[in-house]
Amino acid sequence: MNDNCDTLQNLINAFTNLPSVGAKTAERYAYAIINMPQDTVEFFAKSMLDAKEYLHYCRICGDFTDHDICPICESRSSKVVCVVKEPKDIRAIEKSKHFTGLYHVLHGTISPLENKGPDDIRIRELVDRVTGGDIEEVIMATNPDIEGEVTASYIAKILKPLGIKVTRLAQGIQMGSDLQYADEVTLTKALQDRKEI
Amino acid sequence: MNDNCDTLQNLINAFTNLPSVGAKTAERYAYAIINMPQDTVEFFAKSMLDAKEYLHYCRICGDFTDHDICPICESRSSKVVCVVKEPKDIRAIEKSKHFTGLYHVLHGTISPLENKGPDDIRIRELVDRVTGGDIEEVIMATNPDIEGEVTASYIAKILKPLGIKVTRLAQGIQMGSDLQYADEVTLTKALQDRKEI
Repeated sequence: MNDNCDTLQNLINAFTNLPSVGAKTAERYAYAIINMPQDTVEFFAKSMLDAKEYLHYCRICGDFTDHDICPICESRSSKVVCVVKEPKDIRAIEKSKHFTGLYHVLHGTISPLENKGPDDIRIRELVDRVTGGDIEEVIMATNPDIEGEVTASYIAKILKPLGIKVTRLAQGIQMGSDLQYADEVTLTKALQDRKEI
Repeated sequence: MNDNCDTLQNLINAFTNLPSVGAKTAERYAYAIINMPQDTVEFFAKSMLDAKEYLHYCRICGDFTDHDICPICESRSSKVVCVVKEPKDIRAIEKSKHFTGLYHVLHGTISPLENKGPDDIRIRELVDRVTGGDIEEVIMATNPDIEGEVTASYIAKILKPLGIKVTRLAQGIQMGSDLQYADEVTLTKALQDRKEI
């Protein structure tokens, strides 16, 4: 089959590197690129290279930033630190617009299956931050899965003796969800942590 | 909200230029880029710029190619030309592996709503090809929608007086589909064009 020229096929192949992009979607994206204005494509390619070149971890919280210290660490003063697994979790929490504290990105969770221990994620940096500063509360906002729970417990065990309040995001039924589709664990948690109205 | 640095936001914005990519998907893609190896990102950016720079229409069929004449026009000799709306339709037909003829890309269809007349798509080039060469059959493989049908009829009306056999892709129920979900027009066509087994 000689239906493709290499230039087009290269671009399609490149797009399949993105998460959950198969051959068909990659093809659609590639044709979209060809039909974009020249300067849009140049901006696209440049953004990609810039992101790879200039983005690095914020010296304090570990979020991606193109500065030495990210805008949040730079501008906010708070005694509360929210601990997340990945930088994108920060964006999710920021969108809720109800948290004005600081963040700490672990860049992973403790996961024996992936051969990841406490030393492979940014726990030491968190302990350093907490012992060095005037942090009063650490909110563990890792995912509510096994790795997330284990990581949260592990960190709580280290920080509590230091006199730090360690909290965990509340678990319960999701806003806008249907009760009949909620799993048992979630329903159990929701019942246990029920609130008076 | 000052949660983003410009470098990351630029990349996310760039991804939203792709078809059906919203803010959430763009964000996921952007983080994927940051986590890719340096050379993969360089290859990605280069493929994009190369596609924009080197891909142009094949001088004969109008498909995208980085040569003067595309590999299909270069290598195949046939008296049958399959007329399609867009280059990606060629890829779809090639995947069926049952067509060994030539192609002609219209780059659009006649569409009064989009203010596109016969002169805005590559019909003249098709007529030139047909009158100049030894083409015997033209298969109209435009989409089975109003624009596609109108374009097919229009071209048939021009080519038939030139002694060219003009055919249209068969319409009927789709392979692997469920009869109960087939629309009325499709079922009517399938009944009209029924074949003896």
